[in-house]
Amino acid sequence: MAMLFLSDNAAGVHPAVWCAMQAADTPDAPYDGDGLSARLDAAFAEAFGRPCTALWVASGTAANCLALATMVPPHGGVICHREAHIETNECGAPGFYTHGAKLMLEDGEGAMLAAETLADRLSRIDRADVHHVQPHAVSITQATELGRVYRPEQVAAIGGLARENGLRLHMDGARFANAVAFLDCSPAAVSCDAGVDALSFGCVKNGGMGAEAIVFFDQGLADVARYRRKRAGHLQSKGRFLAAQLLAMLEDGLWLENARQANAAAEMIAAGARDRLQQAVEGNQLFLSLGEDERAALRAQGFGFYDWGDDGARIVTAWDSRPEDCAALAKAIARL
Amino acid sequence: MAMLFLSDNAAGVHPAVWCAMQAADTPDAPYDGDGLSARLDAAFAEAFGRPCTALWVASGTAANCLALATMVPPHGGVICHREAHIETNECGAPGFYTHGAKLMLEDGEGAMLAAETLADRLSRIDRADVHHVQPHAVSITQATELGRVYRPEQVAAIGGLARENGLRLHMDGARFANAVAFLDCSPAAVSCDAGVDALSFGCVKNGGMGAEAIVFFDQGLADVARYRRKRAGHLQSKGRFLAAQLLAMLEDGLWLENARQANAAAEMIAAGARDRLQQAVEGNQLFLSLGEDERAALRAQGFGFYDWGDDGARIVTAWDSRPEDCAALAKAIARL
Amino acid sequence: MAMLFLSDNAAGVHPAVWCAMQAADTPDAPYDGDGLSARLDAAFAEAFGRPCTALWVASGTAANCLALATMVPPHGGVICHREAHIETNECGAPGFYTHGAKLMLEDGEGAMLAAETLADRLSRIDRADVHHVQPHAVSITQATELGRVYRPEQVAAIGGLARENGLRLHMDGARFANAVAFLDCSPAAVSCDAGVDALSFGCVKNGGMGAEAIVFFDQGLADVARYRRKRAGHLQSKGRFLAAQLLAMLEDGLWLENARQANAAAEMIAAGARDRLQQAVEGNQLFLSLGEDERAALRAQGFGFYDWGDDGARIVTAWDSRPEDCAALAKAIARL
Amino acid sequence: MAMLFLSDNAAGVHPAVWCAMQAADTPDAPYDGDGLSARLDAAFAEAFGRPCTALWVASGTAANCLALATMVPPHGGVICHREAHIETNECGAPGFYTHGAKLMLEDGEGAMLAAETLADRLSRIDRADVHHVQPHAVSITQATELGRVYRPEQVAAIGGLARENGLRLHMDGARFANAVAFLDCSPAAVSCDAGVDALSFGCVKNGGMGAEAIVFFDQGLADVARYRRKRAGHLQSKGRFLAAQLLAMLEDGLWLENARQANAAAEMIAAGARDRLQQAVEGNQLFLSLGEDERAALRAQGFGFYDWGDDGARIVTAWDSRPEDCAALAKAIARL
Repeated sequence: MAMLFLSDNAAGVHPAVWCAMQAADTPDAPYDGDGLSARLDAAFAEAFGRPCTALWVASGTAANCLALATMVPPHGGVICHREAHIETNECGAPGFYTHGAKLMLEDGEGAMLAAETLADRLSRIDRADVHHVQPHAVSITQATELGRVYRPEQVAAIGGLARENGLRLHMDGARFANAVAFLDCSPAAVSCDAGVDALSFGCVKNGGMGAEAIVFFDQGLADVARYRRKRAGHLQSKGRFLAAQLLAMLEDGLWLENARQANAAAEMIAAGARDRLQQAVEGNQLFLSLGEDERAALRAQGFGFYDWGDDGARIVTAWDSRPEDCAALAKAIARL
Repeated sequence: MAMLFLSDNAAGVHPAVWCAMQAADTPDAPYDGDGLSARLDAAFAEAFGRPCTALWVASGTAANCLALATMVPPHGGVICHREAHIETNECGAPGFYTHGAKLMLEDGEGAMLAAETLADRLSRIDRADVHHVQPHAVSITQATELGRVYRPEQVAAIGGLARENGLRLHMDGARFANAVAFLDCSPAAVSCDAGVDALSFGCVKNGGMGAEAIVFFDQGLADVARYRRKRAGHLQSKGRFLAAQLLAMLEDGLWLENARQANAAAEMIAAGARDRLQQAVEGNQLFLSLGEDERAALRAQGFGFYDWGDDGARIVTAWDSRPEDCAALAKAIARL
Repeated sequence: MAMLFLSDNAAGVHPAVWCAMQAADTPDAPYDGDGLSARLDAAFAEAFGRPCTALWVASGTAANCLALATMVPPHGGVICHREAHIETNECGAPGFYTHGAKLMLEDGEGAMLAAETLADRLSRIDRADVHHVQPHAVSITQATELGRVYRPEQVAAIGGLARENGLRLHMDGARFANAVAFLDCSPAAVSCDAGVDALSFGCVKNGGMGAEAIVFFDQGLADVARYRRKRAGHLQSKGRFLAAQLLAMLEDGLWLENARQANAAAEMIAAGARDRLQQAVEGNQLFLSLGEDERAALRAQGFGFYDWGDDGARIVTAWDSRPEDCAALAKAIARL
Repeated sequence: MAMLFLSDNAAGVHPAVWCAMQAADTPDAPYDGDGLSARLDAAFAEAFGRPCTALWVASGTAANCLALATMVPPHGGVICHREAHIETNECGAPGFYTHGAKLMLEDGEGAMLAAETLADRLSRIDRADVHHVQPHAVSITQATELGRVYRPEQVAAIGGLARENGLRLHMDGARFANAVAFLDCSPAAVSCDAGVDALSFGCVKNGGMGAEAIVFFDQGLADVARYRRKRAGHLQSKGRFLAAQLLAMLEDGLWLENARQANAAAEMIAAGARDRLQQAVEGNQLFLSLGEDERAALRAQGFGFYDWGDDGARIVTAWDSRPEDCAALAKAIARL
């Protein structure tokens, strides 16, 4: 039997999520007029300790791009890391949702955008020159595409720069739960309290089925997003089943519990691969130096994962990764 | 307890759909790389008797607009009825997906676009004038927004005109099942055999949870749609749960069985309202002449429905409408 | 020799415009950094009696659509007359510039949008329903596509409604000069003083070569338009030649003088066609009832004009219409 | 008196162009229905030795972006150099015209895209992965933004790769004349004969006023471009004045004569700055290593130019650069 560490985005659906969805199968108003959708704002407000507006959508791509579309005009730009998911893996979805706004790319270790890098970029832009795309927003990923986690003060530094420069701040939180679990801080500390205007709150990778939330800490942005969501075909008519997934995640702290399990699984594997780590393990992703023969050897033993460049592998754990599989993988790597 | 006839789009999820979804909760490849998604084309090919390509999406709006986006360039137009859902109820989604293409509206009884009307419109367009938007596609709804059903020869007449004029033909089949059940014909007879290039195949209104299919009878269109779907955030990572819903509908003929039940329910209500029908009942929608007081009286008895203009009501049944509720409503209307 | 009354948009270039353009052929900064472009705001401010920001563009379509794009988000709509040039003759340009916003059409005599019609439309829109496109702007044409002219109080009524409802007001003034000349009022009285936020100020039809102005009475809109103009390829590098045309028109009152000549020419023709007028002649356009044979007879005498429906003709005069040609045409019509 | 070498885009209008424009001031059909516009295709066909379709537009940005919009779908990409004008200086115009297609950037000496670089990029793209933007076109600039010129075999190598990979090839020829004059080859040799599908043929920088041409060597692309041009507000109503400029340039070989003058002027300056050249001088642009003090010294003597980075200057000549100014600048640089 295969022991898959390909991606958390294909992991199973948590039993509590199933229960919540089935409980939602009673007659109610369509779209987001149902009782469950009505409870979302309050549930997120409790988690983040401040009023917010939460909209469910079916995918992280939709969450990211709808959020950005409220922040940046078609003629504007979004500063982000060159490895950001919105740049590399969404088939140009930001260009679609924003009507052609430009992603303005920066480098940075661990796929992290450093505040210094942002400050430098901003200092080099002539903000009154119509020949050049002007940034209107910054987008960062927490945890990053290389499994790294911004500390609260790092987000706050970026948030401060954004505000000073009249830019909005978006956080792609496909693995926000893993980051918060790793940091062991309040979710607000690395989002709204640090200047984030809208957060793509991941649920699918963390035990959900097909629901993510855009959490807006600015009501004005949310008001626009409602129309954009409908217009993008993401206002599902049986929205109560999406709301149910998110509520199941939030209301019992399940989102952090699942993330802790995934992180622990990653840590188990890391224990056997200390000398091969390309990145610090700060969530549920591992990037290991592994030669072609070594990867083949692991695969022959039944382990599934993606190549990462010519000499590496990406290994991702999920809430349902089995400890015995993780232990076996750690051992197998150590033995190479 | 309320007896709701507001819309089929908020109806329950059929038990067989639940079963199929739960059976899909095993590890598999993400997006549409899973085994269930791989079976979709064949399942639809069997239903339609010819090769086709089926893509799942989360909503009818997404299905309609992705289909249209493959057919019409941004500078083109889509001829449709003034009452078409794409015109009236999708918050401009076609404009978003097609990048600004124009809906070119026509009138017609029962929200039906007559072939004669189409022919007349086409005859009046100067096809070489860059000052005017040129049509590239036609879109019709089966069953229509007023519950009416195109006969095979009516679709074929439109399909023939479309082909002669170099236009593509799209069918919004949010209630395609109800139409086919009413006609008691093969699904191909009112779609691909009659010239339809792409069909939005409804599942949500018919007992699904959050999956619709775009059935392409032209492979070239489907190839484009794959990229557009991803770009629109509609390539969900756990796509196997959407495929499962559609397969459950298709593989056991459940889609027609459910539609027959919904149609029969509508027929039960119609039996008590013959003299009030504004439209022939050809599926699961009824449009009744009911004064303000009459509607109030019915609502006071626990019946839920939408107003339709100042002197009418729209009543929609679903696969799970209870016969006793329908009988009660028929009786209540007759008694008015 | 042909006596052409096809359209003012192909008329000649006024000698004063030629002079101004040639005087502009000295080295200066590119784009709109030159000395002539710098004088535009003041020149328009003087004409309109209040501060404004004027941007030159090459065409009326660009002027209209850039103006609208600053007023309406992609998910919004623009209320306008069914016969508005932006709807009928711009090949979907508003959809391009606004990224898919919807034109929401209304009827009205003389291609005029009545305040009552607008009020009625606004009263019927559910302003909180995300399923329906929400209007964000109103666009009217002065003079209209049927040669009619809004009186100051008519524009003010529309402007008042717009403001009350949070909508912006755009005026397509391709023939604004003809309207002001006809009304013999201040230009402000039918534009900014009556609630117009942005005016497409026509110059090409009135003796210019390839320059129109967007006159913004709201600085915020103009700031956005600068980027949109560049992005649309309308920030020409030798912009001084466009500025020169507009200054030539404005600074000597040439724009009104030319318009008066065109209007007088139309009046001369109308004098011979009183019983055939389909619309009151309020500028430089005439719409006459003329049968097929009658039109053929006129054409045989050397007169050029467009058919207008099956039994009519559109006749348009310009600043350079020759009085003898107009007199001849009037006589020829009277003789029919 | 200032001796300006800031940019050729603000140079004067050639007397022959003025003459042609004035000769065009006779009544004719609007838009591109006039006699001069009708002659454009033949004039370009003669210059390029094969049938082609030429559309006038007002700016290089419009030319580039309209051409690209015919080649790449909204979900596709365009491979180009990181220093390409379309990337750096058009305020996101390609994103507007293509509805969000992505510019896929590559490096290369002299702002040139090498065939090897292109081949390498293409080999690394998974052409069947919907998660990644797929290239549909390549765009190169001739002469480049750093004043360098592709040789015929270099363009042909890129053209060959494009064709093999199903990509279209666009050439931004804002300074195409300068490149052809430098190469002393036929214009076809570095464009259509080498695989270019559409060429932005520069005229404004070379003595025109406000007209550029898009020369399509593929009729199908031109047919689409006609609608897109109208939709973008670039179908000017008095198009005869744009056609006149282009015909004046083409029909007497004026375009090459002007370019030769500009190139010779650059060569004169280069003669005094051999040891400071950052790039070979292959047209009318010079990039010189000049420290801050040195630039200040030159400016104090009345020379105008742009800084290029911290230690350099860009100097651009035009058809009307005066030899005495060039000689003076050469001498001034040599003396530094």
